[in-house]
Amino acid sequence: MAIVLYDLVGVDDRRFSPNCWRTRLALAHKGLDCDARPTRFTEIGSICGGGQKTIPVIEDGDSIVGDSWAIANYLEDTYPDRPSLFGGDGGRAVSVFFQNWVNTIVNPGVIKSVIADIHDHLTPEDQGYFRATRENFLGGRLEDIQSGREERLAAFRATLTPLRQTLKAGPFVCGDGPLYADYLAFAPFQWARSISPFKLLDDDDPITGWFQRCLDLYDGLGRQSKGYD
Amino acid sequence: MAIVLYDLVGVDDRRFSPNCWRTRLALAHKGLDCDARPTRFTEIGSICGGGQKTIPVIEDGDSIVGDSWAIANYLEDTYPDRPSLFGGDGGRAVSVFFQNWVNTIVNPGVIKSVIADIHDHLTPEDQGYFRATRENFLGGRLEDIQSGREERLAAFRATLTPLRQTLKAGPFVCGDGPLYADYLAFAPFQWARSISPFKLLDDDDPITGWFQRCLDLYDGLGRQSKGYD
Repeated sequence: MAIVLYDLVGVDDRRFSPNCWRTRLALAHKGLDCDARPTRFTEIGSICGGGQKTIPVIEDGDSIVGDSWAIANYLEDTYPDRPSLFGGDGGRAVSVFFQNWVNTIVNPGVIKSVIADIHDHLTPEDQGYFRATRENFLGGRLEDIQSGREERLAAFRATLTPLRQTLKAGPFVCGDGPLYADYLAFAPFQWARSISPFKLLDDDDPITGWFQRCLDLYDGLGRQSKGYD
Repeated sequence: MAIVLYDLVGVDDRRFSPNCWRTRLALAHKGLDCDARPTRFTEIGSICGGGQKTIPVIEDGDSIVGDSWAIANYLEDTYPDRPSLFGGDGGRAVSVFFQNWVNTIVNPGVIKSVIADIHDHLTPEDQGYFRATRENFLGGRLEDIQSGREERLAAFRATLTPLRQTLKAGPFVCGDGPLYADYLAFAPFQWARSISPFKLLDDDDPITGWFQRCLDLYDGLGRQSKGYD
């Protein structure tokens, strides 16, 4: 039986949530069938009998697991004979730091570049919710936050130096093949690709080549998803 | 027979090289005896029969290995039955990114804060060499580069956010105990401690608590080394 993933969706079936992409690729990495059910922001409260506040959430038989990091650990521990997401306990440990780097350095740079574009690719029901919650959290109008993204681009790209250095030395963050850290870093760029034509990376950036390789993984799972190319 | 480590030294037996500290702690982690021989910049060319340009270099019987990352891999692969530095192949892989983060984000921030202090803690023979090579590489006088460090401190501390987040969740970067990534991050702070009274971190920063724990590892190996506390 396929594992159900409640997967955030905008208009045109755009699957844009970075945290859902972490889970989507973790499931594919493990070779587990996935029923990725399109879920709008305003539907999250009614999935799994209610009580969920964020997605991803997965249903695996009787198990309901939320939070992308908890899901990755659940999959690793529940399916130990399938390809490892972490490559051992040390990989799991250092992936915590890597996730913190993505969450505190990459994601904020991406969100400030595309937050109004996210809004513009949501269904009308979700637009009001998104604007109210994000403008309250970020302390400004979405359009004002996004404004000036061209001028901030060089500084954003500079924050990616450690990732760029790593990808100069090998095809994936984790070497010859991807592990969960690759999916952590892929997620914010797939987020942007899904809902914005804004070009975050130069064509000759090693991060661009790696992102294209990630889009091709698992029969083009990421590339087949609606986005701007 | 102890493994010989050619270990950079300043005045008062100050062992300040961050890359040598990576190796020193890797050897201790593996439980390998270490003969850490004090070596000045201007002596590097004459160790191991000549031809070495940087240290650390280790001599393990007939094997001579330079470069801290190559040494870590050599130790991991040569002594697989001793405690692992990486906790598996995934840990080794993600540690490459972690090292790139330390090298491109942490080290430059530290060096700009203490570079004149390094000079002032070198023997006279080494001072001329250090000033000439570093001023050529960095394009300015050591004292001018270090100047303004108080004003840059908040920005430097902000770059440490992913490390700080990680250390809010556990005692070490790698969880309950240290792995090589801990030594990678420890090294630049031990570098600064060895040759500068300048305070890089607040007392209540989680990074400070972790650094103190690292100083205590292996019977206080780091703490016993001459420095400013």
